[in-house]
Amino acid sequence: MIFSEITNSLSSDLEEVEKEIKKNFHSDVVLIPDVSEYLSSSGGKRIRPLLLLLSSRACGYRGKKAIKHSCVVEFIHTATLLHDDVVDDADVRRGNPSANSKWGNEASVLVGDFLFAKSFELMSSEKDTRIMKTMSEACTLLSEGEVLQLINLYNTDITEEEYLKVVFRKTAALIAASCKLGAILSDSPDCVIESLNSYGKNIGFSFQLIDDALDYMGDENKTGKKIGNDLTDGNITLPLLHLLSRIDETRKERLKKIILESEELHEEDLSFVLGLMEEFESVSYTRNLAKEYAERAKSSLSIMKESEYLESLIYLADFVVDRNF
Amino acid sequence: MIFSEITNSLSSDLEEVEKEIKKNFHSDVVLIPDVSEYLSSSGGKRIRPLLLLLSSRACGYRGKKAIKHSCVVEFIHTATLLHDDVVDDADVRRGNPSANSKWGNEASVLVGDFLFAKSFELMSSEKDTRIMKTMSEACTLLSEGEVLQLINLYNTDITEEEYLKVVFRKTAALIAASCKLGAILSDSPDCVIESLNSYGKNIGFSFQLIDDALDYMGDENKTGKKIGNDLTDGNITLPLLHLLSRIDETRKERLKKIILESEELHEEDLSFVLGLMEEFESVSYTRNLAKEYAERAKSSLSIMKESEYLESLIYLADFVVDRNF
Repeated sequence: MIFSEITNSLSSDLEEVEKEIKKNFHSDVVLIPDVSEYLSSSGGKRIRPLLLLLSSRACGYRGKKAIKHSCVVEFIHTATLLHDDVVDDADVRRGNPSANSKWGNEASVLVGDFLFAKSFELMSSEKDTRIMKTMSEACTLLSEGEVLQLINLYNTDITEEEYLKVVFRKTAALIAASCKLGAILSDSPDCVIESLNSYGKNIGFSFQLIDDALDYMGDENKTGKKIGNDLTDGNITLPLLHLLSRIDETRKERLKKIILESEELHEEDLSFVLGLMEEFESVSYTRNLAKEYAERAKSSLSIMKESEYLESLIYLADFVVDRNF
Repeated sequence: MIFSEITNSLSSDLEEVEKEIKKNFHSDVVLIPDVSEYLSSSGGKRIRPLLLLLSSRACGYRGKKAIKHSCVVEFIHTATLLHDDVVDDADVRRGNPSANSKWGNEASVLVGDFLFAKSFELMSSEKDTRIMKTMSEACTLLSEGEVLQLINLYNTDITEEEYLKVVFRKTAALIAASCKLGAILSDSPDCVIESLNSYGKNIGFSFQLIDDALDYMGDENKTGKKIGNDLTDGNITLPLLHLLSRIDETRKERLKKIILESEELHEEDLSFVLGLMEEFESVSYTRNLAKEYAERAKSSLSIMKESEYLESLIYLADFVVDRNF
């Protein structure tokens, strides 16, 4: 199986999702559709809608609610990207100028708020309160994860456990909720809902860990991000944490100094860090942990009935680890 | 009747609301309770909780849900204050350093997101989907109102009608929703729900118009805001719009220049503006319109049964206009 086979098998659903997204951008306030459209059309992977659709289809659901809720999860994700860019003061997102560098922080904050509110408005037409509960809890965790990440900037003493706590909240929780929603829409029994929730949580961990690995080893043309971006931002992710826990004191001191002064990262400092990461296999370590989570994701699906959609979910767990973008 | 009689009559409810607010600030992420607590304890008027409580009590509701939902509306309001301060780049809020000047824009954006998410989490435990629908629609309007205000900064061509559209979305919609929620919680008939919605909408207009008037005529010690704050921010509110539509071309040109360069407002420019406002009674005009809305708010209540709570709502409509803080 290859990735495009999955998107092809869902092509009409995914087209509907795009239409739904465009429709709900609508506002008579001109700036809102402009900013939303700009961000939405700049190469997002639509991972969350894809997982929601596959989860619902794997549970036998064929109705239209999966389209609307795919739009919901993408809106929430887009809102966090807008707010993230303000927090990170980012100039570039996916290889394009970030929304805040184009329209200013003000617009990014407020259009993010609009997308967030709109996603809840879309959900509010459903009678099933589990949907709202799942998504609002995920959003609370998400914002906590973002704050945790902010607090831990430049903190070289963070443990792997604490780091994984941040990853759970800022990434895995929304992905888990997306998969869980697919199961809730199909009115599946609790064990199936929990199975997809666990799948989503584990694939979410895997996804973030690979993102963190790619930040040190990816191809800039494919990821649209500069190598060492997290380092420059003072965002201490697993490859760096692994390295910090392995190297001798002398090099550790230099590394800490680089981290603290990383806003102006010199070429030689980056080479020093990347060289050490190769020596201590820090990126491989991160990838291996991502692989473990992917395995757990697949195991979570053991109670599911066989179907092409289940196969796609299983394939995606491996794909998330093997991707280079 | 005086204002303190109302708060006294609801004192145990209001204490419960404070407890509920504190309880829901809780997060193991340290920054979140700190920022929330700081903003929440710095002299907010708790107008929205008060209106929700009174509305629910006026509809005969005595249960605990009004406490929880008072917390919800206050959280949403607090979230918008946090985001507002980022957008306005404000140093001061209610006479104290603003949260963003104390903790940075990043924390303000993210803690705002937390409060927003948390408010939806609190609502999601209710089975009545009208609550979620009402609040999410109000939040969408609110964010649109904020964007509209942003777009219209320094826009001296905005009409009174357009200005009132902004006021409806950024202020009146959430106040209307707060009152409406009180009626929904009590399971009132649609005509009562609509009556309180209309009351809230009109009192919301009134509230904002008086805020805008106080910005040019208030007592800095009481409002905690500097006179001419809106002018410095390029926020063209009704007193200024009224003036722009009344004065001769020569003075209009000078006024427009002052507005465009208002970020560094000189004492003599402010005196020039305030002098003109007195001559053309622009603040009185604004206050009179606020009074009209307050009358409409009171008329909206005509179908309600008599009670001490109804009397309080009627009193509040006048109080909002007469206040000097």
